Amino acid sequence: MSIDPNRFLADLHKLREFGASGIGKGVVRPAYSPADIAARKWLAGRMGEAGLEPHFDPVGNLFGLAPGTSLLMGSHSDSQPEGGWLDGALGVIAALEIARSSDQPISVVSFQDEEGRFGVTTGSAVWSGGLPLEQADQLTDGSGITFGAARSAMAELSKGFVEPSRFRGFIEMHIEQGPALDAAGQQIGVVSDIVGIRDMSITFEGQQNHAGTTPMHLRRDAFQALSLFNARLNDRFRNVVTPQTVWTIGRVDLHPNASSIVPGRVRFSMQWRDGDGDRLIRMEEIIRATAQQVADELSMTLSYGPMLGLEPVAMDPILRAALELGAEQVSPENWRGMPSGALHDATNVARLMPVAMLFVPSIDGISHDFAEDTTEDDLIAGLCVLEHAVRALAGRSE
Amino acid sequence: MSIDPNRFLADLHKLREFGASGIGKGVVRPAYSPADIAARKWLAGRMGEAGLEPHFDPVGNLFGLAPGTSLLMGSHSDSQPEGGWLDGALGVIAALEIARSSDQPISVVSFQDEEGRFGVTTGSAVWSGGLPLEQADQLTDGSGITFGAARSAMAELSKGFVEPSRFRGFIEMHIEQGPALDAAGQQIGVVSDIVGIRDMSITFEGQQNHAGTTPMHLRRDAFQALSLFNARLNDRFRNVVTPQTVWTIGRVDLHPNASSIVPGRVRFSMQWRDGDGDRLIRMEEIIRATAQQVADELSMTLSYGPMLGLEPVAMDPILRAALELGAEQVSPENWRGMPSGALHDATNVARLMPVAMLFVPSIDGISHDFAEDTTEDDLIAGLCVLEHAVRALAGRSE
Repeated sequence: MSIDPNRFLADLHKLREFGASGIGKGVVRPAYSPADIAARKWLAGRMGEAGLEPHFDPVGNLFGLAPGTSLLMGSHSDSQPEGGWLDGALGVIAALEIARSSDQPISVVSFQDEEGRFGVTTGSAVWSGGLPLEQADQLTDGSGITFGAARSAMAELSKGFVEPSRFRGFIEMHIEQGPALDAAGQQIGVVSDIVGIRDMSITFEGQQNHAGTTPMHLRRDAFQALSLFNARLNDRFRNVVTPQTVWTIGRVDLHPNASSIVPGRVRFSMQWRDGDGDRLIRMEEIIRATAQQVADELSMTLSYGPMLGLEPVAMDPILRAALELGAEQVSPENWRGMPSGALHDATNVARLMPVAMLFVPSIDGISHDFAEDTTEDDLIAGLCVLEHAVRALAGRSE
Repeated sequence: MSIDPNRFLADLHKLREFGASGIGKGVVRPAYSPADIAARKWLAGRMGEAGLEPHFDPVGNLFGLAPGTSLLMGSHSDSQPEGGWLDGALGVIAALEIARSSDQPISVVSFQDEEGRFGVTTGSAVWSGGLPLEQADQLTDGSGITFGAARSAMAELSKGFVEPSRFRGFIEMHIEQGPALDAAGQQIGVVSDIVGIRDMSITFEGQQNHAGTTPMHLRRDAFQALSLFNARLNDRFRNVVTPQTVWTIGRVDLHPNASSIVPGRVRFSMQWRDGDGDRLIRMEEIIRATAQQVADELSMTLSYGPMLGLEPVAMDPILRAALELGAEQVSPENWRGMPSGALHDATNVARLMPVAMLFVPSIDGISHDFAEDTTEDDLIAGLCVLEHAVRALAGRSE
């Protein structure tokens, strides 16, 4: 038996009906919403029809278990508050199609709350041991609901946590969520590593003052400190970064944030990502030195929030080689090896077993948006690569 | 009869009891609050005791009217949500002391909502005809209460608007609210003009994107546009401004304001002040040209909110000369002529009659803060300057 692209696409479109936004193909299916739970129950049914044993764990991760030792495939079926129809759903339905068409033991997973209604890749973080359940239960969403309260909506479905040792590896297919493949006209990306992330808040505190009566030379304006810091940092990073390195000031909270008051305080987010752990450290040194220099020059008090850090994760060489082999068979010379700039459940699962990832193009690089999409040709190409990779791995294990 | 400094200080401290914050000498007496209304009723009583006719107008401005034609003196007795004890209250009590000690006809006023709970210098703006009452009534405070609803709390006190032609001029004493006098060790500032203000919001709209998967060279990051605009503007203003010119980006609203998302939109306030109307225009040209250039370079959409503008107001030469004469008598060589960087009720009253203003020092330049203060010596010096000025003007008019 081999893969059935029409069945695969039909299931993808069926899943899209759960939480359909009515705007384009977009979906509204945040973790533990009625649409998310209904989608997971439907998925459990499809898993059963495929001969897998549906298994919800205590946080709502849904596994479709093959007997004995198996290769785990999948991703997540929850969405952003305004999400695309593919995102992680693609990886779940592709895994289902592989599982039901392959003669190899393939298990399927849809992790819960990958999109971070509560934490960051919460479901796989708990399962992998990266985030203690008691700690996860304290996390709150934007409206103050706790993870503990939210997951209780699925409590009657739970059969306990799945033992990770029953899986010999994990392959996650996902949309790229960036513009690289689409811009290059390439069909497949085989992930080399998932970049590491550092994220912290920085605060400059100067002196709040009247915007009419305080001469420029006597001001200690926190916004001016932020602007100078940003300009200097961009300058200094030039000699350190690669074209894959990214850094972002995405959040700015100015105080008191009024047009007639010289701002006395700014707290802002500083996030940077790279596949090289040493470069992440070097960038941190530059950030801290630049912030200190600006604080000294402009008479600011400087302070830092706690730094969140995730180390880069290299993909398993064997699983990755199998995906590369499949990519070359399905799209000869029309694929690339590439880092993943986004976090994925595979980052967490890598604590437990070998992992690898496959990307298909995002049209115009759009994701986390109702407008997110990928051509059917590319979706099917991705599915075929998975099929070839599983065959190649089976040949190896025999 | 001459001024009584002790009576003046005692009344200043008595007024401080209405809405006393309990922190230092600070007060919490926003327009139309129970503390503000109680303070105005007490003031009306003190006016009556001084032989003036207390008169509330429909917006809560309180006049103490001398018979016939008189010189109007005063300021405002409402405060910021966290205000100092002096601010405008000083000008009101000083005017009261002058009125009750002078043989000249002096009327007293405490304007309402100078601090802008609803608009900007709302009470004097309505009285002067700068702001139609119907329009003022639609203004709302931070909690959604309308000016119309707020002023109804004082409706039973109203005797209609006072005819401006009964006043031959207006003198307002106020704390400086800036550091110039205190830093120079000078006791008195005689205002030359009240600077003009321009205030508008500017919006850069780029493209919201994933902060992990969007390479730096493909980003259209709205925060980066703001930062570049600010740096260029500071540079270009150098050749245009004077040491008295000020400009401020005091409010920044970034969207969606999340650390993992490249910000797609920023709306920020751009405010600039100068005593020279032509310079205000030249600065606006530079602001618009710089914003357009940054928008073009970084592929941003650029838009502007409505511009609020107040022209510079020159003080009346005769009233100002009288204050300068008084300053030289009270504090020989220890006073200065200076612009007012802050707006005052006098800006509005200048539509109706000649105006002038007198400043006393703010310790460390602090205002709109519980910590605002001025030494007793300086308070009394300011009162004495007013007394001398009134005598000089009387000599002239006789």
